Amino acid sequence: MGYGMAGSLLRGGHQVWGADVNADAVARLQAEGASGGLAGALGGLDALVVVVLNAAQVEAVLFGAAASVAAMRKGAVVVCCVTVAPEFARAMAARCEQAGVLYLDAPISGGSVKAAAGRLSVMASGSAAAFAAAGPVLQATAEKVFALGDAAGMGSAMKAVNQMLAGVHIAAMAEAITFGMTQGIAPERFLEVIPDCAGTSWMLENRAPHVVAGDYRAHSAVDIWPKDLGIVLDAAQAAGFDAPLTAAALAQFKAAQAMGLGREDDAAVAKVYARAAGLKLPGEG
Amino acid sequence: MGYGMAGSLLRGGHQVWGADVNADAVARLQAEGASGGLAGALGGLDALVVVVLNAAQVEAVLFGAAASVAAMRKGAVVVCCVTVAPEFARAMAARCEQAGVLYLDAPISGGSVKAAAGRLSVMASGSAAAFAAAGPVLQATAEKVFALGDAAGMGSAMKAVNQMLAGVHIAAMAEAITFGMTQGIAPERFLEVIPDCAGTSWMLENRAPHVVAGDYRAHSAVDIWPKDLGIVLDAAQAAGFDAPLTAAALAQFKAAQAMGLGREDDAAVAKVYARAAGLKLPGEG
Repeated sequence: MGYGMAGSLLRGGHQVWGADVNADAVARLQAEGASGGLAGALGGLDALVVVVLNAAQVEAVLFGAAASVAAMRKGAVVVCCVTVAPEFARAMAARCEQAGVLYLDAPISGGSVKAAAGRLSVMASGSAAAFAAAGPVLQATAEKVFALGDAAGMGSAMKAVNQMLAGVHIAAMAEAITFGMTQGIAPERFLEVIPDCAGTSWMLENRAPHVVAGDYRAHSAVDIWPKDLGIVLDAAQAAGFDAPLTAAALAQFKAAQAMGLGREDDAAVAKVYARAAGLKLPGEG
Repeated sequence: MGYGMAGSLLRGGHQVWGADVNADAVARLQAEGASGGLAGALGGLDALVVVVLNAAQVEAVLFGAAASVAAMRKGAVVVCCVTVAPEFARAMAARCEQAGVLYLDAPISGGSVKAAAGRLSVMASGSAAAFAAAGPVLQATAEKVFALGDAAGMGSAMKAVNQMLAGVHIAAMAEAITFGMTQGIAPERFLEVIPDCAGTSWMLENRAPHVVAGDYRAHSAVDIWPKDLGIVLDAAQAAGFDAPLTAAALAQFKAAQAMGLGREDDAAVAKVYARAAGLKLPGEG
């Protein structure tokens, strides 16, 4: 999604530097017009957009090996698009502010296709100064920006709520498409009917086609969900809140990991159900 | 939903008789142009549309106290719109066929508003003769008719799949909107943001407004879900299929019943979460 956002920023007329552990991605972005040498350019950036996997990587980028915040000018902004715990977002914002750098808690939703089209939904919270500094980034990359409050944490809280639903809905799709198979309903028939009925969801319409096609190349990998639903359940537990559907969905994604499917598309959670019930999904022998 | 379908049939130019345990509903329908005295008219009907609560009521209407099938002419059709087990639908079809009456397994989706507008989705299966005989009824009442096979049972199987998803999605909405409250997200803010994000579902968009408004007048009651998810889990168990999310959702609806909320709108399952976590939903003190 970071690659798509960088492309949107380039098309928006911004000067963009890219950094990625995958050198090919950086080279591709430079071929599209990005500048080289981010490390030397940090002091001149208006905004540092962080789109990495998890909290540990955020910390490494901002304060660890990369030490980006220390190199940034005062008044520049970190736009953190990563799904992290609300408490972690608050901690990152505090450390940035100590260094004179603004922080926008800005998790994103929409997937890689919307990222490439500059049409993400952003769940953002932070100071008025952080919103103002991040304005050009948001304008180039987002279709909807939800302003959720004047402090870091609320953006991540809303993202946790969204991920709770999205994760449950993916697992529910998998449960229903395989249950249907036990009742004589082929997955392609499921996909013809359910999107027109009350049982549909955004995730079902997005992911069920992967099951029908037997195509588990990762748009969004199974591995994301133990992390994101873990964030949700940690926050829930700290609040004394029981989330039994979320816990049930998490168990299915963990079972998919245990089957070695962590890097497959998250629709592969259907294989957990299929294996348990002795069903053959499309594309399986 | 039967009332809305009867209205659609009247507007479609059909002669319609109504029967309901609620005499007021019958009187209202007659004021809109329906004929009186269904019991005496059974022998002349082209189609008998059954929209009751459960399998026991279907059996009572067709073969029990009402003994409708015995009174119907050969070649007339029973259009059964009730959510029942696939096996029960097959049994009803067989008994109708023995009496020379056609049977269309035709569960509906869309709720009372779409029923009144003649815009239901129908998941139908049955013989070609049953489809042909039911054609005028479907044309007047449905926007989409999914023809799912040439024998009763497949319509009910698809409806079970739809109800599995719909029930899980309602409970997931309830889980997420209350989890959000523990993280400082007001229900109205949830409703502003989530429908534009990947975590949305048809049920969320339909039911979350009831929670936000604190309005639990039943459009679709809590009591429906222990019945419908029970049908799903019975069919799943018979097939050796584990459905943990469905089981978790069922437990929440049963908890709502145990709280005395059975006749409230199914969005009231949010009260199960709110009570457990000590939260006050909109409209609660």
